[in-house]
Amino acid sequence: MSVAQESLSTAIDELTNIFADRITTNVSVRDTHSRDESWHHPHKPDAVIFPHTTEEVSKIVTVCARYKTPIIAYGTGTSLEGNVIPHHGGIVVDLDRMNQVLRVNVEDLDCTVQARVTRKQLNEHIRDQGIFFPIDPGADASLGGMAATRASGTNAVRYGTMRENVLGLTVVLADGRIIKTSRRARKSAAGYDLTRLFVGSEGTLGIITEVTLKLYGIPEAMASAVCSFDDLKGAIDTVIQTIQMGIPIARIELLDDVQMDAVNKYSDLNYAVKDTLFLEFHGSENGVKEQAEFVQTIASDNTGGEFKWTTKPEERSKLWAARHDVTYATKSIRPGCEVWATDVCVPISNLANCILETKEDLKDSFLIAPLVGHVGDGNFHLGFVINREDPKELEEAERLNDRLVMRALAMDGTCTGEHGIGLGKMKFLTAEHGESVGVMREIKKSLDPLNIMNPGKIFSL
Amino acid sequence: MSVAQESLSTAIDELTNIFADRITTNVSVRDTHSRDESWHHPHKPDAVIFPHTTEEVSKIVTVCARYKTPIIAYGTGTSLEGNVIPHHGGIVVDLDRMNQVLRVNVEDLDCTVQARVTRKQLNEHIRDQGIFFPIDPGADASLGGMAATRASGTNAVRYGTMRENVLGLTVVLADGRIIKTSRRARKSAAGYDLTRLFVGSEGTLGIITEVTLKLYGIPEAMASAVCSFDDLKGAIDTVIQTIQMGIPIARIELLDDVQMDAVNKYSDLNYAVKDTLFLEFHGSENGVKEQAEFVQTIASDNTGGEFKWTTKPEERSKLWAARHDVTYATKSIRPGCEVWATDVCVPISNLANCILETKEDLKDSFLIAPLVGHVGDGNFHLGFVINREDPKELEEAERLNDRLVMRALAMDGTCTGEHGIGLGKMKFLTAEHGESVGVMREIKKSLDPLNIMNPGKIFSL
Repeated sequence: MSVAQESLSTAIDELTNIFADRITTNVSVRDTHSRDESWHHPHKPDAVIFPHTTEEVSKIVTVCARYKTPIIAYGTGTSLEGNVIPHHGGIVVDLDRMNQVLRVNVEDLDCTVQARVTRKQLNEHIRDQGIFFPIDPGADASLGGMAATRASGTNAVRYGTMRENVLGLTVVLADGRIIKTSRRARKSAAGYDLTRLFVGSEGTLGIITEVTLKLYGIPEAMASAVCSFDDLKGAIDTVIQTIQMGIPIARIELLDDVQMDAVNKYSDLNYAVKDTLFLEFHGSENGVKEQAEFVQTIASDNTGGEFKWTTKPEERSKLWAARHDVTYATKSIRPGCEVWATDVCVPISNLANCILETKEDLKDSFLIAPLVGHVGDGNFHLGFVINREDPKELEEAERLNDRLVMRALAMDGTCTGEHGIGLGKMKFLTAEHGESVGVMREIKKSLDPLNIMNPGKIFSL
Repeated sequence: MSVAQESLSTAIDELTNIFADRITTNVSVRDTHSRDESWHHPHKPDAVIFPHTTEEVSKIVTVCARYKTPIIAYGTGTSLEGNVIPHHGGIVVDLDRMNQVLRVNVEDLDCTVQARVTRKQLNEHIRDQGIFFPIDPGADASLGGMAATRASGTNAVRYGTMRENVLGLTVVLADGRIIKTSRRARKSAAGYDLTRLFVGSEGTLGIITEVTLKLYGIPEAMASAVCSFDDLKGAIDTVIQTIQMGIPIARIELLDDVQMDAVNKYSDLNYAVKDTLFLEFHGSENGVKEQAEFVQTIASDNTGGEFKWTTKPEERSKLWAARHDVTYATKSIRPGCEVWATDVCVPISNLANCILETKEDLKDSFLIAPLVGHVGDGNFHLGFVINREDPKELEEAERLNDRLVMRALAMDGTCTGEHGIGLGKMKFLTAEHGESVGVMREIKKSLDPLNIMNPGKIFSL
């Protein structure tokens, strides 16, 4: 047994003394924790442990630090860039049992949850009080995981991302110390913004165990709409003009014709197989009407067809369920295959060019790749439907993704709007951030000198 | 001459070789750079230097690093906690000549400016294009300084603070390296959020030389209103209910009776000498009307008197000019004195208690202290009018401020909503952030190992 293996084995023994049957080396549990929802190849951890409290997480980290054992925090496993895959082995800290809503304050429109509370669970918990948490990445992800990935999704165009909606965090650092990054005031100029440092750090600087979030009053009125377009450029121009006019739209999602076909088949719907916008408006009765009429005019000036809008909750739910099932709809195009989701985001003035050049690129490829996007933010995804065991398909997806990322960077955009760097985007980090990556490395080294927190993610050291 | 003095002198010589007459040890220039707008005692730097470009700032830092010479970035000198006072001496880098708007993109609603562009200068520059930058701390501060202090002000309740409105920064690090913290996409999940790390770092991690900012379309309609109240609690409850109802108010400022008296006298106005709200509404014609009527109803349910509202630009300007001159109005209560401005911010559910307990406290004091606040954020200021040469007055202001900060912290608030820690709030940082301050220190040490960037601010090492 190597020194490293011996240390790992001692760490597991020590943790077993403390956690008894809440730590396991069972193969099927390790297998469940070897993957996320991406195309990245799985890798099993050496053990999985289930803490109940922040203090227990601190104990785990303290033991692991002693033996330099890698620690990977795990929420729902819905990451899309291999962010939670323990590809160096080590111990997965599954926060499954830390799923309590700790505090809701309607007056202050905020709450504190344990990291494993999911967004749907939170919304279920607070709905009766007339409030909601808007950030919606599609998957019913854990709020700790969403903070760690700086997630966003369909509502970000109006409500911001996790960056704007996390008020504070409880974090276990790489040496076991427990910190709270902020108090509950809506703003503060007291010292470095540690909240934002940990939001998006993907578990590489510490483990988020509690999250304090902004909440919002459920709008007086909500309306959804669907509009299909004769050409893709018309749909995109509608988005650009809507944003530039400052219309406070709550959701504006683009699905191209390929995506609409998959959605129709998967969700048994009969939308036109055309480039389509799904929209949502929040506000007062009058405000929503005003917004919808405004956007309708913009759409009809841009080859938009009938603007079907509804305020009926069941119709709205049906529409957004179809939108949320896009990943599954895409997978169903080729059962048994994986989806490689791209994630660039560009300034909105470059959105049309970025999408149209990308579609040109796809024309010559043998891969199928529906397009869906949170286009109000300039963010869109291709879903390459691939058999990840076929090197030719992987290579082709990589080639197209490389070109897409470089195109977005040349347009002053980012390689990832919301999925994070994980394993999949590491090679682009320096192309995007240049010398700044050196600063990120220095921060990582100062806060995790042993490199035990989700090692090998974001950048190698 | 001590070793330190010799090093300093050599640094100044080397910089003189490069910058010629753009570095000076002239006493009156040093004196101008010895102070900010706070009560904190001035301290002269050893030299003042005027770079033109980011590359020149990098050269300055490189020389200073070689001789371990303290470097203090200086914008307009309008900080309120001694943030720019070079109290360990060293070289002040006055960014005065870095005052160019580099780029404005109306389509993307963003721009990039050199750090010394002031907010008014920017708004003057872009007004013709129908867009504006909302963050308004009162003073016509530089945008680099506002980023460094995480400033906010009257519009933050609707538009957020510098935290939410800086898209990216160019920063010269403590070893002279130049980094860009972000590209222009509206959101990104690519690596650590260095933008937010430098926003609010008060020049202790690097010198901000360029700022990329979000801009907004000038609203179709804007209306301002003034409403005075029979009792302070009624005014505060109006604020709390307005925020809790989710009304997207653009400004909601509280001035107590003492402050209104000073405002009337200074700005030659005749408002009622009562606790008063200054309000502003942005939106469509209908939206503004709807908002204003809503708040009017809330106000009249809470002892509010006549709700005087106007959409006339000149009347709106007059109102907000009076609001912005509050500091001068306060100073004019006792000519020749200084104003010690407090800056707590609490969750809005605690705002009434925090303000009312504070007013109780003031009753027994011999100091005058008008109250003004960005109450929609839970943020308010007392302005202690003091003779800073009188130890008794200083001691009394300190006693009251200590009690105020501890009260705000006990209510889960912050010691500073928008002024920063500087020199004045250092003693509260651990009380507010606990173990997190250790993390801030580790970051400081890793990015500025020689402790030359604005040393002795935020925390001592």
